Amino acid sequence: MRVTVLCGGVGAARMLRGLIQIVDAADLVAIVNVGDDLELHGLSVSPDLDTITYTLADQVSTERGWGLEGETWQAMEMVNRYGGIDWFSLGDRDLGTHLYRTHRLGQGASLAEVTSEIVAAWELPLVIMPVTNDRLRTMVTTVDEGEISFQEYFVRRHHDVAVTAVRFSGAAATTPTPGALDALRDADRIVIAPSNPAVSIDPILAVPGIREVLVERRADVVAVSPIIGGKALKGPADRLLVELGRESSSVAVAEWYRDVISTLIIDEIDAELAPAVAAHGVRAVVAPTIMRDTDSARALARTVLEQG
Amino acid sequence: MRVTVLCGGVGAARMLRGLIQIVDAADLVAIVNVGDDLELHGLSVSPDLDTITYTLADQVSTERGWGLEGETWQAMEMVNRYGGIDWFSLGDRDLGTHLYRTHRLGQGASLAEVTSEIVAAWELPLVIMPVTNDRLRTMVTTVDEGEISFQEYFVRRHHDVAVTAVRFSGAAATTPTPGALDALRDADRIVIAPSNPAVSIDPILAVPGIREVLVERRADVVAVSPIIGGKALKGPADRLLVELGRESSSVAVAEWYRDVISTLIIDEIDAELAPAVAAHGVRAVVAPTIMRDTDSARALARTVLEQG
Repeated sequence: MRVTVLCGGVGAARMLRGLIQIVDAADLVAIVNVGDDLELHGLSVSPDLDTITYTLADQVSTERGWGLEGETWQAMEMVNRYGGIDWFSLGDRDLGTHLYRTHRLGQGASLAEVTSEIVAAWELPLVIMPVTNDRLRTMVTTVDEGEISFQEYFVRRHHDVAVTAVRFSGAAATTPTPGALDALRDADRIVIAPSNPAVSIDPILAVPGIREVLVERRADVVAVSPIIGGKALKGPADRLLVELGRESSSVAVAEWYRDVISTLIIDEIDAELAPAVAAHGVRAVVAPTIMRDTDSARALARTVLEQG
Repeated sequence: MRVTVLCGGVGAARMLRGLIQIVDAADLVAIVNVGDDLELHGLSVSPDLDTITYTLADQVSTERGWGLEGETWQAMEMVNRYGGIDWFSLGDRDLGTHLYRTHRLGQGASLAEVTSEIVAAWELPLVIMPVTNDRLRTMVTTVDEGEISFQEYFVRRHHDVAVTAVRFSGAAATTPTPGALDALRDADRIVIAPSNPAVSIDPILAVPGIREVLVERRADVVAVSPIIGGKALKGPADRLLVELGRESSSVAVAEWYRDVISTLIIDEIDAELAPAVAAHGVRAVVAPTIMRDTDSARALARTVLEQG
């Protein structure tokens, strides 16, 4: 069974961790958001791609639940001494990835090529690709500061400023990464991971050609709601939905995705919302959706693949 | 007494360590070679500037004699995993300096501005400046590989390939850093540190205007020979002199610098060479020149300041 997954960061990484246990990795393709990418200290940083790679490579600290196992912060201590940019911390191990990526991009390699090299170095058997090799940046309009980059919103402001609009700068001029459209056309199942619809999945759909294929393949597209009991497990998806004029619920997620999905997995706690989801023309499937560990991730992956 | 020093890396750092003990730091200016600078993984690296700063800030490992105290290599381990550039190792602490420098240069700051910020962060009271804010790169022509950058020669090839020529790419279009010419004109003593004449001091002299001031100030310019008993204490100065058609001796150093210095400090072991040095119109002063520790560095500094 060929499975292609649209991915943000942490939620998607956990979803993939479940899927890779029940799908042949050669049949698993992750298409990843690049709207969060940034240039910092001259380096090219791709947080969602790296979160997924590090998670699948078992490099994420199990103790802390984020960052790399055995990470240190010596470079940042020096940056802080100099009064440099300190709001986005780059660990020393993590820096090695950005050094390599920046070097290869400087040589003319595409982001997809660099990503596949990094994925190969970690001996991961699936395909992980950025949705586009072109520059696409998620920009957030805030009440207080006007438009700022996604990471300025998410990390620098700890996503606690009110947002009035989201824009994907450069999206119209991008083209999908070679192989991305085929991976969507040829998949037996397309999965939208439990990532933030507004700032993780929408930038993927903003790449010309991607949304169109999903509309065609709608019957085979299953999303997992990132909203559980009205709250996001992580990040600002719940508040963003409200600020953008929706409600913070799986019903709003169904409405958000209604053109591109036929099925939405919603958490058991939200079972009563199934009829309201259905009212948007989306079939609601009620299941446990919190991926606390590998077993729960695998169970959710199985639920996702059983649909359609 | 105002003292301005032309500096390469390690030898110059030790010389400055001696001078700073007997000269008011407000009267001490280090003008530093940038021909060794390089771009690596997208970062701007200035090895001679950093060696001097780290040495004066007491950050160099006393145990190893090179590299930063408490340095780690986590980023490089990741770069190696990916098969990235591994021939020039950047420690994690050191990386912090390059991140800051690259960030500030990207904002439009000059290398001199960034350097003064870094020097201030280490609370060093002297002025350390690159000889120019412009791009100047020392290029080395090798028998086997043609022309390569200085660091490719020095680090990647461990300076064990035969050299036929040295060139300072871009030098003709550079201008001296603001304040550099004044620091040379106003100094009571100008010192050429015991650095490599061909690849550390010559790139400084290649910046239009610098050599001319030294010729004018020749009576007050004192150099310390980096060649002791026919050998360089560190690096390839001895072999380079021979490959470039000179001999490996303090006499050749005197000949090299004869237009810009009036005095050359040569080591006691070379006392018999004093007449041959004098034959080049350069006064030879015989003294201990090996800076094993702070005391010997201070003694050499005192010798240098007593001349002229």
